[in-house]
Amino acid sequence: MEKRYVVLIALIGLLGPLFAQQALWGEKPVVSPEIHKDKTVTFRLNAPNASRVEITGDFLPAQKIVSPFGEFDGPGIVELKKTENGIWEYTTPASLAPELYSYSFLVDGLKINDPANVYRIRDVATTPNVFMIDGERADLYKVNSVPHGSVSRRWYPSPKLGMDRRLTIYTPPGYEESDADYPVLYLLHGMGGDEEAWIALGRTSQILDNLIASGKGRPMIVVMTNGNAAQEAAPGESSSGFTYPTMQLPLTMDGTFETAFPDVVDFVDRQYRTDKSKQGRAIAGLSMGGYHSLHISKQYPDLFDYVGLFSAAIFPNDGVTSPIYEDMDKKLEKQFAQAPALYWIAIGDKDFLYKQNQDYRNLLNKNGYGYVYYETPDGHIWKNWRIYLTEFVPMLFK
Amino acid sequence: MEKRYVVLIALIGLLGPLFAQQALWGEKPVVSPEIHKDKTVTFRLNAPNASRVEITGDFLPAQKIVSPFGEFDGPGIVELKKTENGIWEYTTPASLAPELYSYSFLVDGLKINDPANVYRIRDVATTPNVFMIDGERADLYKVNSVPHGSVSRRWYPSPKLGMDRRLTIYTPPGYEESDADYPVLYLLHGMGGDEEAWIALGRTSQILDNLIASGKGRPMIVVMTNGNAAQEAAPGESSSGFTYPTMQLPLTMDGTFETAFPDVVDFVDRQYRTDKSKQGRAIAGLSMGGYHSLHISKQYPDLFDYVGLFSAAIFPNDGVTSPIYEDMDKKLEKQFAQAPALYWIAIGDKDFLYKQNQDYRNLLNKNGYGYVYYETPDGHIWKNWRIYLTEFVPMLFK
Repeated sequence: MEKRYVVLIALIGLLGPLFAQQALWGEKPVVSPEIHKDKTVTFRLNAPNASRVEITGDFLPAQKIVSPFGEFDGPGIVELKKTENGIWEYTTPASLAPELYSYSFLVDGLKINDPANVYRIRDVATTPNVFMIDGERADLYKVNSVPHGSVSRRWYPSPKLGMDRRLTIYTPPGYEESDADYPVLYLLHGMGGDEEAWIALGRTSQILDNLIASGKGRPMIVVMTNGNAAQEAAPGESSSGFTYPTMQLPLTMDGTFETAFPDVVDFVDRQYRTDKSKQGRAIAGLSMGGYHSLHISKQYPDLFDYVGLFSAAIFPNDGVTSPIYEDMDKKLEKQFAQAPALYWIAIGDKDFLYKQNQDYRNLLNKNGYGYVYYETPDGHIWKNWRIYLTEFVPMLFK
Repeated sequence: MEKRYVVLIALIGLLGPLFAQQALWGEKPVVSPEIHKDKTVTFRLNAPNASRVEITGDFLPAQKIVSPFGEFDGPGIVELKKTENGIWEYTTPASLAPELYSYSFLVDGLKINDPANVYRIRDVATTPNVFMIDGERADLYKVNSVPHGSVSRRWYPSPKLGMDRRLTIYTPPGYEESDADYPVLYLLHGMGGDEEAWIALGRTSQILDNLIASGKGRPMIVVMTNGNAAQEAAPGESSSGFTYPTMQLPLTMDGTFETAFPDVVDFVDRQYRTDKSKQGRAIAGLSMGGYHSLHISKQYPDLFDYVGLFSAAIFPNDGVTSPIYEDMDKKLEKQFAQAPALYWIAIGDKDFLYKQNQDYRNLLNKNGYGYVYYETPDGHIWKNWRIYLTEFVPMLFK
């Protein structure tokens, strides 16, 4: 056998079904999504046997979902049209605004990924396809040709929880070559998320790389924890194996995580060159992570000078008791007596937690506690949390 | 609105379609795969409108694929049966051997993921679902309750390639608390892979954690590079964005990567506490990565005392010229004159590169060059490469 043949066969063997079936046996590969120059987008699915193909995604106008608990905005849904060769197609009627979008197909009602698009990001228990429309703020979500920080998955001991736990940590470009101490942002995820959420869906490393490169953000360390105190690590990454929690996890919004949080700070301050002053620490989080940030920052008023509540839950649920949630008024009084460098509250005008945040702002106003408020359109979605991160980081450690 | 309601709605909003549609509106969630106590496995898909549902995966007996270039073993395929409620089901007729398996469904010919299984690992351009059968060697592939190393994505400058490039690096448990120098294994992927391949499909961090915990492997650093010299990083992780290479990449098996490899070693020796002697360095790789390991180790005979060729390509393709591939006989003579501590060749008895490896062993035999040969059943598949890693690591740095 000639060497040329060996290499060809190697290619077939190594690149598997993609090349074997599509490139080599003549079936034309489907391109999907195809982002056109005018930023309209065409989606395609090769499904000759399907009788109905739809696409659902956050780039489509939201649709009302009626539930026993009320109405919600859900992602829109639209039909694809069957073309020759059994390929179904849909092109957006207008350009899409710059953003990281996610979508899935529905084939005769069955939700599937786009087999032509290898990019998928897990969001809790589903793994939709993603695509990017460049430009404007979304350019902060891209990997650009700028110096890149490092992203590590580390395990830290949590004596208070009696286990080793995993976290994700971003160190800025130059950290390893420097002797300097760096300020630290602790960045917390929402319910159902884990230590992968901010780095994957939140585009944290890209946002930090880009803000630091443009001089808008100070070089800082970002620590992304797992806020489910019953878990060692994200699904699939712990000794519980490839199982998936199918119910709300215990130990999420009951004070356990907040109580054990100093274990994280101890580890980070021991293992990294950190600015160990209050002025060198920020804590922020989305939804449940905002709730954690609120209660951790008031429980340990000497730890964090910067606090960010992104679409935060505020008040503990009825019946939940923990020393963490006791004497809220007194603890806030103590925290605000020291006037945080920044206490930042951000929420979307359609967020189901809007009212709770309004109540909290009234409480802060009544007491004359200083904070900055930032309101955006839309609801409880990642688009907003990425926006909030790009707004929050430039205000830190100035 | 009562707080209790707010929390319920928070749950719906945060956990999205999974809870909203399945748990709360009464549709029973499908469990798939269900691994039974006897290690048979049931797969299920809720697809009431489908007329044919199949499953394809590496747990099924291989099937012959006929191509213009010859016959290959491809993953098997079997039909599911429709049960009441429109749920399709298949149970393996016998227990499955311990292993990390991958699979996809075919619905009326359309390949899809199992929507009930959130675990997927990208393999080149496809992202099949995965599941684990515990036991025996596969227990080395699990996250166990042992000390865990750290896994970092780092960017290193490659002056020889004129770009910053990404690598994945494993540091063993205790590295950060120690002052010791550690030996380094450079571990290279195959064609179509990238710096994510060994950590995701190869289960490198789990295998190293477990071998180190049992005392079978020495604590070591493992460096996983990107062998496509035209790429900065894995698809989606570089400034080329969410595009996917649809053809064989240039600069993969033409000497470019091998020529630039000292840039990697320089970076790692500068940034990590490494044993900088030849005795403290190993290089190994699968397929194209084995080819790279062969040619790098003979080009720089003072760098590596341990060499592992896992299902390696051996000889450069006709017409490929590079100083790297010149004078192969002389370079091997020089390399083996210094008697590597270990020169390890492993391959499956059905591998399409078997003959090339046989030719190479004949060449080594003829010259009296010492090596260790390890043969397994099966072909050019990840199962074998995980096995080879678990065999290779315990022999290193002794």
